[in-house]
Amino acid sequence: MGTYNVAPLERLVEQFEKMPGIGHKTAQRLAYYVLNLSKTEAESFSDAIIEAHEKIHYCSVCCNLTDKETCPVCASEKRDKSLICVVETPRDAMAMEATNEYKGTYHVLHGAISPLNDVGPDDLKIKELLKRLGGDVSEVIMATNPTVEGDATAMYISRLLKPMGVKVTRLAYGIPVGGDLEYADQVTLARALEGRNEL
Amino acid sequence: MGTYNVAPLERLVEQFEKMPGIGHKTAQRLAYYVLNLSKTEAESFSDAIIEAHEKIHYCSVCCNLTDKETCPVCASEKRDKSLICVVETPRDAMAMEATNEYKGTYHVLHGAISPLNDVGPDDLKIKELLKRLGGDVSEVIMATNPTVEGDATAMYISRLLKPMGVKVTRLAYGIPVGGDLEYADQVTLARALEGRNEL
Repeated sequence: MGTYNVAPLERLVEQFEKMPGIGHKTAQRLAYYVLNLSKTEAESFSDAIIEAHEKIHYCSVCCNLTDKETCPVCASEKRDKSLICVVETPRDAMAMEATNEYKGTYHVLHGAISPLNDVGPDDLKIKELLKRLGGDVSEVIMATNPTVEGDATAMYISRLLKPMGVKVTRLAYGIPVGGDLEYADQVTLARALEGRNEL
Repeated sequence: MGTYNVAPLERLVEQFEKMPGIGHKTAQRLAYYVLNLSKTEAESFSDAIIEAHEKIHYCSVCCNLTDKETCPVCASEKRDKSLICVVETPRDAMAMEATNEYKGTYHVLHGAISPLNDVGPDDLKIKELLKRLGGDVSEVIMATNPTVEGDATAMYISRLLKPMGVKVTRLAYGIPVGGDLEYADQVTLARALEGRNEL
């Protein structure tokens, strides 16, 4: 920005600019927001970053994020341990939790198989999933994303699990609730037709 | 999110959620981004916040942000000190700088007169502006926003300055370059007509 460079401000803008979905203008706006914070507020922001980074790690059972040895879901007595929902990211697990419908446990892969991005099965938490399959797991629900990568990952894992005698299911494809048939893409509509249920 | 609460993560999400234009979903996305940073990256992010907050203050002349005694514009020998462009925020000054057309100095008010938000003339850096008006200032350009508040502020300041014999000007109103007449609002179009220039 020519002569007008305030180094510490530029550094802060750069930090925000690296974030996903944040462009230069938004990064500037966020940096100015930080400058307008009180000293205590800025410190607690800075501390929250360091604290989250230091304390949060993977759950020793399901690989979801937690600040304890195991995550609240794995630690809970109320959750059905015979049911494992396999998701790509912790945010996907959170989305499932938000439905308030699912009472089983999760397994977070931390990614999906994607040869283009150089992500193979060994880069995901698949070994950790296999370790969990003892006598009491009755069903594994594949809830990876409805994308090429998510489908490939679900297929890969189901092929590993089926010989072990575990029931493997996949989330239903179909038209979203509140959506509009007119705007649904052909593939989704074809899948919705294929998976139609009797009324 | 029910049972699924990781305290340090929630605290980080809350910090991002307070920022302007950042909703809950985006705050989550940013928090996960921070978690995926390396230790050094997280530390430099955290440090950038504290550093910017500690080192940046107002320029002793124009009240723009700087980490020195005076900002680079006020310190530069190449800038025309007889010209002062009055803006509401440091970002407005940056926008003016980005044009590469302006060679004078700035004065940052840090807000605009707005009775609704309880901001009066005394809350702005108007006294600091008056102090700068010595023998060598020939023109003050009011570049406050084209809003009710910005206009009121420009009007208020020009009434203070005119008796002091200073030339006060206002940025031109008109249709934006690359815009479409059809989509210009009536007030803007009327102002563009009013301020028409001979070709």
